[in-house]
Order: sequence, then structure tokens, then C-alpha cells
Amino acid sequence: MSPTMYSTSVPVFVRMLGNMLNWLDKAEAHAVARKFDSANYLGLRLAPDMLPFSRQIQIATDAAKGCVARLAGVEVPKWEDTEATLAELRSRVLKTMEYVQSYTPDRIDGSEAREIVLPMRQGDPLRFTGEAYLKHFVLPNFYFHATTTYALLRHGGVDLGKRDYLGAA
Amino acid sequence: MSPTMYSTSVPVFVRMLGNMLNWLDKAEAHAVARKFDSANYLGLRLAPDMLPFSRQIQIATDAAKGCVARLAGVEVPKWEDTEATLAELRSRVLKTMEYVQSYTPDRIDGSEAREIVLPMRQGDPLRFTGEAYLKHFVLPNFYFHATTTYALLRHGGVDLGKRDYLGAA
Repeated sequence: MSPTMYSTSVPVFVRMLGNMLNWLDKAEAHAVARKFDSANYLGLRLAPDMLPFSRQIQIATDAAKGCVARLAGVEVPKWEDTEATLAELRSRVLKTMEYVQSYTPDRIDGSEAREIVLPMRQGDPLRFTGEAYLKHFVLPNFYFHATTTYALLRHGGVDLGKRDYLGAA
Repeated sequence: MSPTMYSTSVPVFVRMLGNMLNWLDKAEAHAVARKFDSANYLGLRLAPDMLPFSRQIQIATDAAKGCVARLAGVEVPKWEDTEATLAELRSRVLKTMEYVQSYTPDRIDGSEAREIVLPMRQGDPLRFTGEAYLKHFVLPNFYFHATTTYALLRHGGVDLGKRDYLGAA
């Protein structure tokens, strides 16, 4: 069967969000072993003018949540960015997995040509077709924040490797 | 039109490789302005046990090249990893754009169920359907190395932002 809007979004998010849960578990175990508060991860940054760890996970999960809602033509649920512990970030990833899995293929498929309007904090909104939004905006953005999450943990000494990033083959 | 194996691979690579050319141009300009040898970027690493900048670009380009060749069922061309300057890495990105653009949709479409066998340096080869290979292996891997390339330049002081990562909307 040809790829569909559903098959190139929901299972892709679910797979990588599941991998992220595994990274967070390893991060928690590393903090326990080294006896530091795992909330210390939340402020880590790759550069002082880049967003911190907590925002990487919030934005990655927002990318997945916003994608399925917009492709299905429903309002994007607003989640407050209030996570203050690694466990709360883990819950957000899990909640996102459950949210995207609540969409059935019939709600997402056929959204290739749907007009997606993305409000910007500054300036005009971005406008895409559903397909361009998914391929050229959501997926690169989602993987950007997933990879940065991984890089921050890796940089912080958590024992992660490429197999943890990609997940089970 | 529904997404296809071609439309979810070739144009995706071309877009992000084009963005990478732009990052490399900004990196070169930064080196000129700060009067350092732009070859200094090539050894940068996010952590001492992560691969350096040059390998990030070599692997990202290999991911794109290998993907189109394998989906089309042809032998993957072998490119030596000999780049020693930023200009040579730029040429590799450009060569990859030209290579993936040399594939027409009819050579890639219909490869959803093709068996892809990926030899591993250690252990058994990985086996995928064409669709799983593209969605769960190639794209996360490609974006991983693209994002790490971006993060290294960002960390190195190059004036890049999210818009440079995502490219023209």
C-alpha cells in the first residue's frame, strides 16, 4: 500500500516518542546512579541562546499534537508548558503518544491538499498544503527537537547510542 | 495526490540539502569575518565520543544517496569520505542533491514493499520493507545528522536560526 498522510505521520510520531521515553528512563537512571536531581536536565542548553531541554520536549510534542489536529481539521488542544520535573516531561511524551494514537486513519487521510494556516508569533501566518506541512515543516521540526533532546542527554553523560535514537529496527 | 515513496523522499532531501548549503555558506562567511580557517569546523564534536562535523555531513548525504538507490533497486554508489575542507563538504552536499534529483518518480514509486537489506558493520543485516526503511530509518537518521550539523555550527557561533534549518516556507 502506498504511503498515506496517516502512515507518514501517526506511526512515525509514536515510534520516536516511544524512543524518547526510553531516553528519559535512561536519563533518570543516570541521575539516580550519579545522585543528582534529574530536574537538572531541564535547563540544559547546547548554546546559551538556544532553548533548554524542557522546551525541546515541549516543542517536539506540540509538533506531533498540532500536526494530527490540523490535518484532521480540528482545533489544536492547548497544553500549558508547566513541566518542572523529568517525570512530568515523561508524562507529556506519553500523553502525546496517546493523543496522536486516538486519531484513526480516516481522520487524517485525504488531508494532502487541505490548507493549513500556521499563526506565527511575528508577521504573517505560514500557509501550506497538508502534504507540504507534514513533509517540509512538521517532520523536520519534530526530528530537530527530538535530536536536540537526544544530544543534550548525550552531552550530559547519559549512556545513549544511535540505536536508542532510532529505536527497534 | 496521495504522498508517494518518491514525494516523501527526493523532494524532502533536496529541500534540506539546499538548506545545508546555506548553513555552510554562512559558516564560511563567519570564518572569513573572524579570520579563522573554515576547515576548523570539520573536527568539531558535541561530545568527545560523538562523530565530528565532517562525518555528520558525510552520513547525512550517504543516507539520502543510499535511500534513493536502494528504493530503486540499484547498487549504492560508494563515495570516499576524504573531504578535508568546508568547500569539499559543500561539493558533497551539492553532488548529493544532483544525485537524488537524477531519480525520476517511476524509479522510486512502487518500492513500498521492496525488501531492503542493510548490511551492518557488526552482526546481522537490518531488513525492512521500503516504506519502513524510508519512514523509520532513513528520515530520522537523515534529520539526526542534519540537526547535529546545524547544532555544531550554531554552537560554533555561526549566525543561524530555525528559519535557516527549515528553509523557505
